[in-house]
Amino acid sequence: MSARRLSEREIIAKLSGIFRSPPAPTGIGDDCSVLRIGSETVYASTDMMAAGTHFPAFMKPYDMGRMAAAANLSDIAAMGGRPFALLVSMGIPGDTAQSKILGIARGIQKCASEHGAMVVGGDTKMTSELTISITALGKKTGRTLLRSGAKPGQVLAVTGELGGAAADYLRWKSGGRVPARSRLTSPSPRVREGIALSLSGCATAAIDITDGLALSAWYLSRASGVRIDIDAGSVPVSGRLARSGFAEPLKEDALYHWGGDYELLFTGQSESGIARVGKRLGTRITVIGRVSDGSGVFLRSGGSVRKVEERGYDSFGS
Amino acid sequence: MSARRLSEREIIAKLSGIFRSPPAPTGIGDDCSVLRIGSETVYASTDMMAAGTHFPAFMKPYDMGRMAAAANLSDIAAMGGRPFALLVSMGIPGDTAQSKILGIARGIQKCASEHGAMVVGGDTKMTSELTISITALGKKTGRTLLRSGAKPGQVLAVTGELGGAAADYLRWKSGGRVPARSRLTSPSPRVREGIALSLSGCATAAIDITDGLALSAWYLSRASGVRIDIDAGSVPVSGRLARSGFAEPLKEDALYHWGGDYELLFTGQSESGIARVGKRLGTRITVIGRVSDGSGVFLRSGGSVRKVEERGYDSFGS
Repeated sequence: MSARRLSEREIIAKLSGIFRSPPAPTGIGDDCSVLRIGSETVYASTDMMAAGTHFPAFMKPYDMGRMAAAANLSDIAAMGGRPFALLVSMGIPGDTAQSKILGIARGIQKCASEHGAMVVGGDTKMTSELTISITALGKKTGRTLLRSGAKPGQVLAVTGELGGAAADYLRWKSGGRVPARSRLTSPSPRVREGIALSLSGCATAAIDITDGLALSAWYLSRASGVRIDIDAGSVPVSGRLARSGFAEPLKEDALYHWGGDYELLFTGQSESGIARVGKRLGTRITVIGRVSDGSGVFLRSGGSVRKVEERGYDSFGS
Repeated sequence: MSARRLSEREIIAKLSGIFRSPPAPTGIGDDCSVLRIGSETVYASTDMMAAGTHFPAFMKPYDMGRMAAAANLSDIAAMGGRPFALLVSMGIPGDTAQSKILGIARGIQKCASEHGAMVVGGDTKMTSELTISITALGKKTGRTLLRSGAKPGQVLAVTGELGGAAADYLRWKSGGRVPARSRLTSPSPRVREGIALSLSGCATAAIDITDGLALSAWYLSRASGVRIDIDAGSVPVSGRLARSGFAEPLKEDALYHWGGDYELLFTGQSESGIARVGKRLGTRITVIGRVSDGSGVFLRSGGSVRKVEERGYDSFGS
């Protein structure tokens, strides 16, 4: 059986059986591993991106670097951590222009410094495909926001708007241009928001939406052992997706099953507590659902309720 | 200018200018970054390997995993640290057999557990070339063995024997078979030795020999601002290289400019102190040279002294 027949989740499940690591939150299974180092709690995350799978042809080297760094910082943000160090491995094809390598590095550096982290080490090797693998380390700030922290009676909320990255990708695939400040090519990890939520005392669980809202909600539901109901009418749709002119089924697919927006999906004890955090930060935060006893993720639209497909972005295409 | 015209060292030098990280030992420029976390000192290292460049066709998946882990643990060993956590990113071509992925994971796990470390997190992505990127974290034990710690009057020493990995690679390139327990495919990082040296109070600087004895000695010389004289007759030559039947120039090249043995090259305050560490561990440790005022690396053979070429293994082939 080849990797293509397995999804990334299936591969990770098999690998977790081999790597006899402690279960999440300490080991494999959350946005970051949680390491206890002396009296400190440190979050560690690693993420690999490769040219063929992650960087559409139009992307500038600078944006590739930013995106690779953003994906890792987003994982630290989803734990509520304060990133402090990145280690960067770059696999570089032999015919790569030097300006491209340096452009990628500048993008990584910019994104790291914007969020208070330093690139402290790295490696470069010759590879056939341009590949960037980054490990991010972050320090605990307030409460560690695990995927398993959601409890019945709490509310589900999301930062920013969803579907913008997917809309821009789909537009590009159909021959259109991608705007300069697209979330697809210039995602901004919600580090400030993650820290504020961690310190708020209100947030209870979080995950970053890299593989789509549906899959992220399923991860929360499974890790917390709860049912999640999303109110379709409340989901904040990116203006780019709303105005895209795509047919309704594609729009819905882009909103729920694509991803790439790097927003935070989280649960909190009360709507008012969450609203306070959003107001203080000046960040749009929207309550989009409820947590209750049970299992699974459901979508409420008009009077109907249906189960949400457990499906999202997967570089293996399953 | 393409990457092929730059060496890995040149690329890293340029990247260090962009990543405004603190200078070594804290940031880029030693075997590991040195991070201060609370009251603890943590070493962090990252290393990427790709199928086309690092894994000869005959290598088993299990050995690929072991080697990728060993390369990282060797960096922790070179600081004198005790490894505790690995983060593993795997780039996997879509047609990779599942058994291969799991074999690699088993090799990583085996090498990690042999040296007291756990795989605490990771990532898997679809790539065109099989790529393994690992980040290792280790804790300080005794003295941090920086490349910059060597001082005039001290002695230069090496663990184990050199040239075995190169000999097996060259034999394979000329149509021969690689023995089952070759250091080329089953390197063993000198973690135990690194810790013992760090705790000994005698060792002052260290580096692991991944890119060859010559280049490693040059790194020590440059970082410490000292001259290093290697006594050619003292360098412990692997039996495999000694008995290889290769012409003398190739033998010498393999011994000094290849690498892949993952031994430690280090300096110490006295020959007797170093001998004690070797005896206690049951590990062959050989004094091969002296540190003095000045700069550069020199080879003493018979009555002659010549400068050693600053050249070693480079995946970019420069």
